[in-house]
Amino acid sequence: MTDPIVRFALHGGAGVLDPNSFPEARRIEVVRTLRAIATRACDALRAGTGAIAVVGQAVAELEDAEFFNAGYGAVLNADGEAELDAAIMDGRDRSAGAACAVRAVRNPVRLADAIRRDGRHVLLAAAGAERFARTHGVATCAPEDLVLPIRRAQLAAAQRENRISLDHDERYDLVERKSGTVGAVARDRDGHLAAATSTGGMTNKLPGRVGDAPLIGGGTFADDSTCAVSATGHGEMFIRAVLAHDLHARIAYRGDALPVAADAALAAVAALGGEGGLIAIDRHGDTVLPFNSPGMYRAWLDGDRIRVGIYRDIEAD
Amino acid sequence: MTDPIVRFALHGGAGVLDPNSFPEARRIEVVRTLRAIATRACDALRAGTGAIAVVGQAVAELEDAEFFNAGYGAVLNADGEAELDAAIMDGRDRSAGAACAVRAVRNPVRLADAIRRDGRHVLLAAAGAERFARTHGVATCAPEDLVLPIRRAQLAAAQRENRISLDHDERYDLVERKSGTVGAVARDRDGHLAAATSTGGMTNKLPGRVGDAPLIGGGTFADDSTCAVSATGHGEMFIRAVLAHDLHARIAYRGDALPVAADAALAAVAALGGEGGLIAIDRHGDTVLPFNSPGMYRAWLDGDRIRVGIYRDIEAD
Repeated sequence: MTDPIVRFALHGGAGVLDPNSFPEARRIEVVRTLRAIATRACDALRAGTGAIAVVGQAVAELEDAEFFNAGYGAVLNADGEAELDAAIMDGRDRSAGAACAVRAVRNPVRLADAIRRDGRHVLLAAAGAERFARTHGVATCAPEDLVLPIRRAQLAAAQRENRISLDHDERYDLVERKSGTVGAVARDRDGHLAAATSTGGMTNKLPGRVGDAPLIGGGTFADDSTCAVSATGHGEMFIRAVLAHDLHARIAYRGDALPVAADAALAAVAALGGEGGLIAIDRHGDTVLPFNSPGMYRAWLDGDRIRVGIYRDIEAD
Repeated sequence: MTDPIVRFALHGGAGVLDPNSFPEARRIEVVRTLRAIATRACDALRAGTGAIAVVGQAVAELEDAEFFNAGYGAVLNADGEAELDAAIMDGRDRSAGAACAVRAVRNPVRLADAIRRDGRHVLLAAAGAERFARTHGVATCAPEDLVLPIRRAQLAAAQRENRISLDHDERYDLVERKSGTVGAVARDRDGHLAAATSTGGMTNKLPGRVGDAPLIGGGTFADDSTCAVSATGHGEMFIRAVLAHDLHARIAYRGDALPVAADAALAAVAALGGEGGLIAIDRHGDTVLPFNSPGMYRAWLDGDRIRVGIYRDIEAD
């Protein structure tokens, strides 16, 4: 007997444009994209597709959308290259796969899932991860195929000011500022949970820099007994807070309800100086999407309805 | 007013020779090395050196010792290269640094600590990490300078059998089997905690494979409010269990005593099929060194005495 209550949430990063400056046509386009991806994911879940397949597909679609800092359109490191991080985790058995500092892979979440299914390793880095992609049927591309022209201007601006920036950094010119990391969490008809996250990290980051997204327990975690989590924000603080596992542990060991655990885990990141947000679904199907940044691109299933949000008090649909 | 109770523990990996086959001269040499490094660390702690400096120095000395699978003498990946992982974390402020899949760096823990002190990033991978070493005063070397000849034979044996092996894999020829990952945890006179871990991972691993050692919360973690942890074993299961942060969380959120928390965290790794061990010191100075493998090279301060162990029931000193 399956439980028909499916749940889904996605994020497109905690970096958002100032609401007064966000071109309306662009905002509508982003909202439409988020809604379409969430709708397809929910349809798949209702049709019986497993949570692990749904989060992988949703994140791949977010990677393909140029609005987001993942896959095509990712930000550039100090060498002018897109270096990508991704992870995926299945709450059924805690199987996990991840790739970090990879170039030349258009959908790093597909690579992460291929590593998970292969089963020998959990995390592969850089050239070794790219080689795994080529030898395991994961589509590769030329590194420059990932580069959206606007990212070069963004990098040049960051380098003029000698700073490393999250994509949501307030100081970006508005036309240059785009959204951030992407992620998805789901609960399928059988009550299984899964999470996936993908990112290009920070503009002008040092080559080889790895954020929290590909770290199991950092920016990505899933366990059927507690919750599925995907985070976005200033990765270094999320790593030091071990954010995603911290949320799990507060549920598992303190018995905290999901909203309490999520707020406390995010507060621990903030205490380290970190800004960002997370999406999480627990085993009961409760869904939370907290953030301590000005906004977070997000869509989620609320009852039978897909909702989309960007800012704290603005419902985007 | 400082608390004079300093504490220290180190491990040289959960891979040990069968006690009936361990050449006595070699065993004595390993024990002497472990004791000498632990003695220097405890002397430094008593003299007032901080925990973070002491664990970095102890792990660098373990890396330099050819017996261990870290730094010089590390195991080789499927390409015949030593690719190294390391992390260090300061319990005072949770500052952390780590490097993964790096070649050409003789002391990866020094690189990890340089990343920590730099403060921009927590984790750097592969060529980017090597470049950071070159530009930030961390000694580099030719990749082949890390290779101990016996590791080539070990890799050839693994490749003949088409397997990926932890250094403590039972199937190794005895002369080829050497010890594993290294790590250290300390509590200094001011009650501050720190942890560091360094490893070459698994023989015949895929190039780019990253284990738990460099993952904050995976194989390395420290927080003054709870404990400092360094792990060794089958990294993939330690990553999925988020072992080091799990131990922290059981203390922080369940109020478990250190021995209870450590055994439960290691049992969670075992439930995923993982073998290995850990060393941990809590804020009260309690020290534990549990393992579920046949043995674990280890040394620790017990009262005023340095003790050294290899097997479960054998006191090596």
